[in-house]
Amino acid sequence: MNANTQDSAIEFYFDFSSPYGYFASTRIDDLAADFGRAAIWKPILLGVVFKETDMRPLADVPIKGEYSKHDWERLGRMMGVPYRLPSKFPIPTQAAARAYYWLVDRDPGLARLFAKAAYHAYFAEDVDISNPEAVVGIAAALHVEREELQSALHAPAVKERLKTETMNAIGRGVFGSPFFFVDGEPFWGSDRMWMLKKWMQGEKHW
Amino acid sequence: MNANTQDSAIEFYFDFSSPYGYFASTRIDDLAADFGRAAIWKPILLGVVFKETDMRPLADVPIKGEYSKHDWERLGRMMGVPYRLPSKFPIPTQAAARAYYWLVDRDPGLARLFAKAAYHAYFAEDVDISNPEAVVGIAAALHVEREELQSALHAPAVKERLKTETMNAIGRGVFGSPFFFVDGEPFWGSDRMWMLKKWMQGEKHW
Repeated sequence: MNANTQDSAIEFYFDFSSPYGYFASTRIDDLAADFGRAAIWKPILLGVVFKETDMRPLADVPIKGEYSKHDWERLGRMMGVPYRLPSKFPIPTQAAARAYYWLVDRDPGLARLFAKAAYHAYFAEDVDISNPEAVVGIAAALHVEREELQSALHAPAVKERLKTETMNAIGRGVFGSPFFFVDGEPFWGSDRMWMLKKWMQGEKHW
Repeated sequence: MNANTQDSAIEFYFDFSSPYGYFASTRIDDLAADFGRAAIWKPILLGVVFKETDMRPLADVPIKGEYSKHDWERLGRMMGVPYRLPSKFPIPTQAAARAYYWLVDRDPGLARLFAKAAYHAYFAEDVDISNPEAVVGIAAALHVEREELQSALHAPAVKERLKTETMNAIGRGVFGSPFFFVDGEPFWGSDRMWMLKKWMQGEKHW
C-alpha cells in the first residue's frame, strides 16, 4: 500500500464482540472499493474504551439492551447477513484481536480473511471466540501455523500492540463500534455508512 | 382522526431538548404523509427516562459528547436545517411539553405548530425554552391566550398528563429521542428514518 492509498484509506475500528461492527464489516470493503479507497481494519477492546468513557455494553443497559437485541435480529434479516445472538455475549476479544494484529504485519490479506472468519464464527456459528483455542482453530483453517499463533497470543509485543491501538483509538475520539475515519472525519455507527458515502462523493459543504 | 388513521399513525416520541429529536421533527410529517399516515407527536422528559434506564444526557458522556456536538452541526448543514448548539444545553423541558399537551386536547393542529415553533426557537434562535415565560411567548405568537396557558402550566391535570405520557413511553420501551413506533414496531434515532420507510413500504420480511 503506498502512502497515497494509506492517506485516503477508510479506517474501520471495531470490537469482535460488536454486532454493529459485524454488520459493518460485511459492507465496508465494498464501500471503500466503490471510491477506489482502501479500508484499514483495526480491532480494539471496547471494554477498555467503555472504562475510559464510563459507558457500558449495550446489552447491559436496561430497556435499550432489549431493543438492541431486537434490532440486531432485524438488521441481520434485512441485510441478508447470517446472524444469531451468540450464547455467550458479550465476550472479551483479546485473543481474536491479538491474532489479527500478529497476522496483519505478516500478511494483510490473510489478516482480513481471518477477521471475517472470526466475526462469522461468532455471530453466525455461535463459536465462542473468547476462547484462544477457537481463535487458533479459525486461523488454522486459513493455513496459519497453530503453534506459532498460540505463542504469539501471549507475546508481550503482540499484547502491547493491541493496547496501543486501543489507546490510540480512544485518543482519537473513538467511543463505540463500529467507528470510522475518512479523511480524518469521524463517523460512529453502522447507521452512518450512508454519510461516509456522501463524504466521499465530495458533499463536504456540511 | 378516525380509528383507522390512529391505528396506522406513526408515533413520534421526543424531548424538546434533543437535537436528534429536532432534526427528526423537520422530516417526520412528510414521511408519514408519503404513506398516507398521520404522525402523532409525543413530547416526553428524557431526564425521567434516563433515570429509569440509568443513562445520561449525551453531552455529559466523555468523548461521545464531543462527537455528538460535531455531529449535530454537520447534520444541520447537511439537512439544511437551521441549527446552533443552544447557550444553555441540555435543559429541562417541562414547560414546553406541558404546553403541548394542554394545546393538543384543544387543537391538535395548533399544538403541532407550537411544537415546531418551540423546537425552532431553541435550536435555531437560542431561546431558552426551559423558561415558562419564553414558552408562553412562543404560544402567544400563535394566538394562544397568555394567561390561560400560564395557569395551565401549573395545573395538576396537565402536569399529570406529561408524567403519564413519559411513564407510558418507558413502559413501551422508549429510551431515547427521537423514538418511533410504526404498527407497534420500535425504531430509535433520527438515523433510522430510512428503516421506517422500508417498513411502511411493506418490506417486513425482516
